[in-house]
Amino acid sequence: MSKAVPLALGSTIGILGGGQLGRMLALAAARLGFKSHVYSDDPDSPAFEVTSRATHGGYGDLPHLETFAQQVDVVTYEFENVPVEAARHLAGLVPVRPGARALEVAQDRLVEKQFLADLGIPVAPFAEVSHRRDLVAALTRFDAPSILKTRRLGYDGKGQVALTPDADAGAAVAALGHRAAILEQRLRFAFEVSVLVVRGLDGAVAIYDCPTNSHEGGILRRSVVPAALPPSAVASAQDLAKRIAVALDYVGVLAVEMFYMGDGALPALVVNEIAPRVHNSGHWTTDACGCGQFENHIRAVAGWPLGSTARHSDAEMLNLIGDEVDRWAELAAEPGLCLHLYGKREARTGRKMGHFTRLKPRASGA
Amino acid sequence: MSKAVPLALGSTIGILGGGQLGRMLALAAARLGFKSHVYSDDPDSPAFEVTSRATHGGYGDLPHLETFAQQVDVVTYEFENVPVEAARHLAGLVPVRPGARALEVAQDRLVEKQFLADLGIPVAPFAEVSHRRDLVAALTRFDAPSILKTRRLGYDGKGQVALTPDADAGAAVAALGHRAAILEQRLRFAFEVSVLVVRGLDGAVAIYDCPTNSHEGGILRRSVVPAALPPSAVASAQDLAKRIAVALDYVGVLAVEMFYMGDGALPALVVNEIAPRVHNSGHWTTDACGCGQFENHIRAVAGWPLGSTARHSDAEMLNLIGDEVDRWAELAAEPGLCLHLYGKREARTGRKMGHFTRLKPRASGA
Repeated sequence: MSKAVPLALGSTIGILGGGQLGRMLALAAARLGFKSHVYSDDPDSPAFEVTSRATHGGYGDLPHLETFAQQVDVVTYEFENVPVEAARHLAGLVPVRPGARALEVAQDRLVEKQFLADLGIPVAPFAEVSHRRDLVAALTRFDAPSILKTRRLGYDGKGQVALTPDADAGAAVAALGHRAAILEQRLRFAFEVSVLVVRGLDGAVAIYDCPTNSHEGGILRRSVVPAALPPSAVASAQDLAKRIAVALDYVGVLAVEMFYMGDGALPALVVNEIAPRVHNSGHWTTDACGCGQFENHIRAVAGWPLGSTARHSDAEMLNLIGDEVDRWAELAAEPGLCLHLYGKREARTGRKMGHFTRLKPRASGA
Repeated sequence: MSKAVPLALGSTIGILGGGQLGRMLALAAARLGFKSHVYSDDPDSPAFEVTSRATHGGYGDLPHLETFAQQVDVVTYEFENVPVEAARHLAGLVPVRPGARALEVAQDRLVEKQFLADLGIPVAPFAEVSHRRDLVAALTRFDAPSILKTRRLGYDGKGQVALTPDADAGAAVAALGHRAAILEQRLRFAFEVSVLVVRGLDGAVAIYDCPTNSHEGGILRRSVVPAALPPSAVASAQDLAKRIAVALDYVGVLAVEMFYMGDGALPALVVNEIAPRVHNSGHWTTDACGCGQFENHIRAVAGWPLGSTARHSDAEMLNLIGDEVDRWAELAAEPGLCLHLYGKREARTGRKMGHFTRLKPRASGA
C-alpha cells in the first residue's frame, strides 16, 4: 500500500494490546465507521468487549500474528512493549503504524535517552549500568540523587529504585535482579508536563495543549490543562515533541513527558521519556477537544486527515485507581463531569479502572 | 429488581435493534464500562461490530428472546417497532426500559394522537380511516390539505400520501394498500423543532436544548441548535415533552417532534409525533453537550444518575444519506467538524450512512 493512500471506509484497524487504551482506540475507530480487530495475550482484555473481532494470542506467536495481519488493513499498538521482531514481521505483511523503530527506541530506556541526546534534546544525565562497577562509577560521577531503572519493561514506577550518591551499589543492582539498567540523575524541576503530538501519514503535525501531570506512587494521578507554562516554554515543548516525531518518521499519537525546570532555567525543559502511543495524560482530550487523542491516532494510522486539536474547555483529568472506582455513583451524579470506566472485572490495587474529566470554561487568554 | 437499584458496574445492557442507534448506544455503554448485547434480525447489523455479544434472531422469536434476557441485566431498544408482545414477554424476565407502554403508544399513529389529545396536548386534527368512507367523511370535515398515513410501520416518509380536500379517496386508500390509516390535517407552521427529554429511573428529568429540524424527501436532513424559539415557546415545548414522559412513566431518552406555529399563534406548539428512543435530531448532543443522548439513555435505563444536558457550543448536525458518505475525506479535513460514520457496507439510496456536527462558540444569550 502506498504511503499516500488513506484506508477505505469500513476498513479494519488491527490493535495490538487489549487494555483500556486499546478499548478506547476501538471505540474511536467505531465512531469513524471502522472495524477493529483486537489482538491480546490476555483472554480477559477489556478491549475484547467492544468489538466482534478479537484474537487471543501471544505477542511473539508468529502464526497467530500472521493470521491477524491477513484480517486487518493496518496494525497499530496500544503499548510500547510489543516485541520489535513481531512488529517487523507484521510490517512485511501489512502497514504497522507507528513503526517498529518507535518501539525499539521506547522499549529500552538507554536507547531512548541516547536517541534523544543525539537529537540535541535536553535529557537528565544518564549512564549505562550493566554491572555493579558501572553503578559505582556513575554514582560517583553524578554525586547527586539518582534513580536506577531497568532498561526494559518498567512502567508505573515498577523496576526502579531511588539512590543517594553513597548508596550500596551491590544492593541496588540486586534489587533490580541484576537486569541491564540505566542510572538517571534526579533533577529538581518545577513540575511535569507532557506533550501529545499527532503526526499524519502525510507528515502533517497537530499538537494538543500541554497538561501538567502529577503522580502518586509512580502512577499518574492527575492531568490539568492548560499547564502553567510561560508561552516560550509552550513553544519549546511543542518544538521538542515535533522534532522527536519527525526523527522517528512517526505516524499516530506520541506522548512526550517533560520536566519544566522553572522560570529562567536553562534548558527550560528536559525530556523524561516518550510513549509511542495514546497516553493517560491525554485522556482529557476526548472531552475537551473537537477531536480527542484516540480518534486522532486512528485518523493518523488510517492515513486520514488529522482532526482539530483545539480545546473548547479547560480540563482536569483524574484516574480512578483500584477501589476508587467504587466512587462511580457519586461521580456520575456530578454535573459536567465526564466519566469513563474501563469495564475491568477486578479492582486490583494500583489497577487503572477508569478516569474522569472535569470541564471548565476556558480561562481567557489560556 | 427494585426500581431504585442501579445496575452494578460492568453489567450487560441488552439492546433490541442493530442499526446506527443501537451502535451508538453500545459505544456509549462501553464508555461507562458496561457490556452490550445486541439483538437484531439483520445479520449485517452495524451494531454487531462494536460488541462481543450479539444475537441474530427475529423480534417475535420468543425462545431466542428468552435466552437473550438471561444474558443481560436490562433490555432497551433502538426502534419503536419492537413487537409489544415481545417487550411484555421480556419484561417478565428482566427490566425493559422504556417500557412496553411507550412502544404501544408510539407504534400506532392513531393511539399516539389519541394519547396526546387525552393529555390535553395540542395535536393536528386527525381522524381514523379504516375504510374509504371514513376518508371521504374526514376530507369533507377538514376541508383542508391533509396527509393520510398508515397507522403502523411508516418512517422516513414511507406509508404516507398527501391529499387535497377533493382528492380521490379510493385511490388514496388503495395507495396505502388498504391498511388501517389515520388522516391528519396539514398545518401551516413556522418550523419544526424537537425536544429530547431524558427521564431517570427515579423520575428525575433532564432536557436538551431544542433543535430546529429540516427534512428532505421525508428524511431528516439537518438539525440546528439553538432553535429560533422565543423563551416562552422553549418553556412550553419542554413542559409538553416532560408531561408526555411522566404520563408514560418513561425511562430513557424520548424524542418529541413539534411544529412551532409562529409568533403569537395559539397554541404556539403542536406535537407531531413521539419516538420512544434516542433520535436523529439529538445526534449533535454527543458533540455539543457534556453528556450526549446516547450516554444519558444508557444512564437512565441502568438506573444511574442522569448526566448534564448543558450545551457548551452551538451546533449544526447534518445527515450523510446514501452516497453522500463519499464526502468523508473532505469532511474529515474540515477543522472543528465532528464526523460520525456508521460502518454500513452498502450506501443505498436514502440510507443513513453517517452524520456530522459543526460546532460554533455559543452565541451570547442563546
